[in-house]
Amino acid sequence: MQLGIIGLGRMGGNIARRLMLNGHTTVVFDRNTDFVSALEQEGATGVTDLPALVAGLAKPRAVWVMLPSGAPTEDTIETLSQLLDADDIIIDGGNTFYKDDIRRSQALAEKGIQYVDVGTSGGVWGLERGYCMMIGGDTGVVTHLDPLFAALAPGMGDIARTKDRVSDDDRAERGYIHAGPAGAGHFVKMVHNGIEYGLMQAYAEGFNLMKMKGGENLPEDQRFDLNLGDIAEVWRRGSVVSSWLLDLTADALATDAPLDGYSGAVADSGEGRWTIEAAMEQSTPVPVLSNALFARYSSRQQSLYGDKLLSAMRFGFGGHVETPKK
Amino acid sequence: MQLGIIGLGRMGGNIARRLMLNGHTTVVFDRNTDFVSALEQEGATGVTDLPALVAGLAKPRAVWVMLPSGAPTEDTIETLSQLLDADDIIIDGGNTFYKDDIRRSQALAEKGIQYVDVGTSGGVWGLERGYCMMIGGDTGVVTHLDPLFAALAPGMGDIARTKDRVSDDDRAERGYIHAGPAGAGHFVKMVHNGIEYGLMQAYAEGFNLMKMKGGENLPEDQRFDLNLGDIAEVWRRGSVVSSWLLDLTADALATDAPLDGYSGAVADSGEGRWTIEAAMEQSTPVPVLSNALFARYSSRQQSLYGDKLLSAMRFGFGGHVETPKK
Amino acid sequence: MQLGIIGLGRMGGNIARRLMLNGHTTVVFDRNTDFVSALEQEGATGVTDLPALVAGLAKPRAVWVMLPSGAPTEDTIETLSQLLDADDIIIDGGNTFYKDDIRRSQALAEKGIQYVDVGTSGGVWGLERGYCMMIGGDTGVVTHLDPLFAALAPGMGDIARTKDRVSDDDRAERGYIHAGPAGAGHFVKMVHNGIEYGLMQAYAEGFNLMKMKGGENLPEDQRFDLNLGDIAEVWRRGSVVSSWLLDLTADALATDAPLDGYSGAVADSGEGRWTIEAAMEQSTPVPVLSNALFARYSSRQQSLYGDKLLSAMRFGFGGHVETPKK
Amino acid sequence: MQLGIIGLGRMGGNIARRLMLNGHTTVVFDRNTDFVSALEQEGATGVTDLPALVAGLAKPRAVWVMLPSGAPTEDTIETLSQLLDADDIIIDGGNTFYKDDIRRSQALAEKGIQYVDVGTSGGVWGLERGYCMMIGGDTGVVTHLDPLFAALAPGMGDIARTKDRVSDDDRAERGYIHAGPAGAGHFVKMVHNGIEYGLMQAYAEGFNLMKMKGGENLPEDQRFDLNLGDIAEVWRRGSVVSSWLLDLTADALATDAPLDGYSGAVADSGEGRWTIEAAMEQSTPVPVLSNALFARYSSRQQSLYGDKLLSAMRFGFGGHVETPKK
Repeated sequence: MQLGIIGLGRMGGNIARRLMLNGHTTVVFDRNTDFVSALEQEGATGVTDLPALVAGLAKPRAVWVMLPSGAPTEDTIETLSQLLDADDIIIDGGNTFYKDDIRRSQALAEKGIQYVDVGTSGGVWGLERGYCMMIGGDTGVVTHLDPLFAALAPGMGDIARTKDRVSDDDRAERGYIHAGPAGAGHFVKMVHNGIEYGLMQAYAEGFNLMKMKGGENLPEDQRFDLNLGDIAEVWRRGSVVSSWLLDLTADALATDAPLDGYSGAVADSGEGRWTIEAAMEQSTPVPVLSNALFARYSSRQQSLYGDKLLSAMRFGFGGHVETPKK
Repeated sequence: MQLGIIGLGRMGGNIARRLMLNGHTTVVFDRNTDFVSALEQEGATGVTDLPALVAGLAKPRAVWVMLPSGAPTEDTIETLSQLLDADDIIIDGGNTFYKDDIRRSQALAEKGIQYVDVGTSGGVWGLERGYCMMIGGDTGVVTHLDPLFAALAPGMGDIARTKDRVSDDDRAERGYIHAGPAGAGHFVKMVHNGIEYGLMQAYAEGFNLMKMKGGENLPEDQRFDLNLGDIAEVWRRGSVVSSWLLDLTADALATDAPLDGYSGAVADSGEGRWTIEAAMEQSTPVPVLSNALFARYSSRQQSLYGDKLLSAMRFGFGGHVETPKK
Repeated sequence: MQLGIIGLGRMGGNIARRLMLNGHTTVVFDRNTDFVSALEQEGATGVTDLPALVAGLAKPRAVWVMLPSGAPTEDTIETLSQLLDADDIIIDGGNTFYKDDIRRSQALAEKGIQYVDVGTSGGVWGLERGYCMMIGGDTGVVTHLDPLFAALAPGMGDIARTKDRVSDDDRAERGYIHAGPAGAGHFVKMVHNGIEYGLMQAYAEGFNLMKMKGGENLPEDQRFDLNLGDIAEVWRRGSVVSSWLLDLTADALATDAPLDGYSGAVADSGEGRWTIEAAMEQSTPVPVLSNALFARYSSRQQSLYGDKLLSAMRFGFGGHVETPKK
Repeated sequence: MQLGIIGLGRMGGNIARRLMLNGHTTVVFDRNTDFVSALEQEGATGVTDLPALVAGLAKPRAVWVMLPSGAPTEDTIETLSQLLDADDIIIDGGNTFYKDDIRRSQALAEKGIQYVDVGTSGGVWGLERGYCMMIGGDTGVVTHLDPLFAALAPGMGDIARTKDRVSDDDRAERGYIHAGPAGAGHFVKMVHNGIEYGLMQAYAEGFNLMKMKGGENLPEDQRFDLNLGDIAEVWRRGSVVSSWLLDLTADALATDAPLDGYSGAVADSGEGRWTIEAAMEQSTPVPVLSNALFARYSSRQQSLYGDKLLSAMRFGFGGHVETPKK
């Protein structure tokens, strides 16, 4: 099958590669011509602008947009919508807010253009392990694109099958699902990332606690000097908290136990925040997901005005003078 | 009435003063002889050690211990227990953990010594405004000491009476209560401080938000440059969030709106933590009180090992390199 | 001065009354003609539709819209924008999202119509105590309307002045501020309500803790049977946590200590949620304000699917069978 | 090697079985004689009281106590301490608070008895998968017991080795670690469980959000009817959130997608709470771990007095009447 791909960064480039390794053909574009050249050498057809990309594809065309969410994706899809014909397909594989998918899908439908949103997890490991995909869109078009999704997905591999699972649809077991109409793919991916933040913060708090158990906040006779690398390792083996994130933790601790190579100023992308917004729309509590997000904000901030206000109040009612932070 | 007072710091010294201003007599001790001398000049009888203090009091003696909680209070009460006689009274006016009160009360009861715990709120303002007191102990001894509590308490003053309040006991309206048996006074004071942390953090988060609304985390056309001093002032006037803590906030902002004079490394004492422990004993959720406490921990910390672990995981699954915090 | 008022519910009706008590004249409209009649008897000019309201006002007209936020307010302002002339003024005194104010202000400016947003705190007490107001809009029009704001505000009253406060602008001390351009008034009011949620939840958690200290979650010898009404009362007198919300708490406990008359299914309006959204836009943590909001969500929910998932996981790894909640 | 085992419930019984399957011999006791009989038929030596158990073991004796933490474990160890001789070994494999380990270890050391604490993860799956163990105690005795730990641990199995891991000690890779002195084993296990609560709650909040996306809290045109079983399944395949807990989730959803068979009144044991206490001792924030614990408290509670107080305050300031929860 043939796919146009726009955006050849870490994700887009490897998606092209994994498709070609599985016998599909790609027409690729990126503003960075080095990325295009690299993929041409691996068998892709490189083009220098969007009209050329559209011209290079057979109808019904399928174009996968793999760009940063927000303006880059929005503008590209706007341009494509003017170049494509009815029955062509735009796939947004980035981290778009699901309500933007719904809006775009409705606007493109007026031109007869199909819109598919694909939440993609797998990061730098996707080329090798395959991409876990959550797909939103009409059933017809999702079915039409199935050969591409099947090639990108991890497949069953050697992961143990879920006991008692009965389903006519084995796509989930092969690593991708058709989650629902346009937007549903990115919605599920958004929640996935919200959960991811919560999981990561749970490990972070636990390992932080064990690290500090050896430290100066405690009297000397209450300390344990724990080997965190060994702890991460042993928990990978039969414990309730084993996970891929724990595998990564064990990896990181095996090479740099004090983690001195990491800044600890933790970025967050839109998904974490949108998850909290979705929860508020539903009036449902998400204390762990929200506090995981806030911990990232705190990690990036040297000091808060609000903390100074606490100091000021304490001075006001108790004459307390706060000493500067260590 | 006559009272022995041990510990003449900010709280103990002013308690002595307020009692003397109301016609009571005091026998006072502090390791810092300057503090003793100062109070002698205001009419107190100063002594140089605990035996002298005990010798200077008429039976049944009443001794108010106003020392830092933990060892200083514990050791002093232990010493007193050997110097005092049956029917004498030890009053702990500090910030003792209420379970220590229960333990001490039982131990002292074997010698016939009475134990009273007094949770005292009022800080540096107590001399002028009076102390709000929550008292634990047997009814007989609390009644016996009533003249002292009445003198220390703020009294009705010009605070509006609570509509529909009907009670045979007007002590609450005069600013002190007999909360229950030994420990109950400090338990109520503990919860008071837990609430205090929550209230303070609510204001801190709100003012922080308004401060940052003028700042660089936002695009220029989304900013408001708000006058926080005026906002605190106007909220004092008819708004739902008016409070004494807001009065203090308005005060602080009137003199130092950027709060540059405050470190923002916010201390916490035992009460906040004990409140969380009490909630866990009861299996009842306290998300706001606990997060208010944790915000203070965060305010004192330059960086967390756990944050570095988050960076390390993000690098592991996505190749993300975190930039250092600003 | 003359003011048109649309919406004569609890807030709008009393605003009209307080203005008339202070010598201003009002032209009033509500879909409920009983409300209109009631105010006519108190001196207002009642009208039966918006064109009549506009016709009854002298230029430059000023119209205060006091309706539920969302569609009722939006539609009314849309209609007014077609009836009013350049230099007329629309005032939104409801709980509008501040970004809607900015949008409306820009749209109305094209017709030369002025837009002012007024965040109003005071609730059912405003008629008597006055309204605390946070105002957004151009300086010229806010100044023009000053006589109205001055009449609605509480004034200095007998609230102690803030020590060291120095300002050329005494409006804050009289209970209203010009916070900034359009939207700034509702932004400050939004944060006010966010703080309000946090304060309320802090008290709720603390009193809950004290209530449960007497209950069955604890062994009998660890219980205290505390008089919560007395505790609320005593804290009003010199304690750090005294506030208007505590006054209300004391009131409620004085008449119904078990609070059996209250459902405990706590509603929330947009402001709490918007405050969290604003914090996420600024990447600043608001753990207390968000958890206060989530506690309200929890209070309204019988059970969560997520909780069942926890039970299912516990059964999965440990064979634990959860008993139903009490 | 020979081991005495006290407590033959789900954990203790299977520990005995796994040891015998690996060529070790056991002398077993439980108050429930059926449990003893069952193990006798599988090759164990059953006894009817503790003296008989001690008599049946060769010196230096090793006795594994696998009982509920608290009184059952404490009393049994107290009894054993009177029956055992110097150089004998008591192993506590239960969920003891680590400070109790430290205390016991010191007390037993006076009699020359060795004390080892083993935090054991693996639950009902341990017999088949092996137990992940975190061990505290003196190096000599932990080394002496190594054959037992090696037999109980999962071993390397087919879990991928951690890249770059370099260590002289391969015990972590085989599924057990010597964490440090007495108490260190249970400390690490405690943090393990704290993390477990956080991970579980992250999944619970995310799945709850996806479930409610199909439900009545949202307008019909904003709903997605998501297949949660498929989502859990697909996330197992190459996504960042894959984990053993997710495997269990997929399992549960495969057989009972509405989870109607689960009560959702989620229990918690001591470890979650102790983890929060440990964090407070270290003055380090654990917002996610604590909120995960509190979510369990909430899951078990029909209503909170504190929620009624919120209703009461809202009625007080705004005349709001709350409707009962659905």
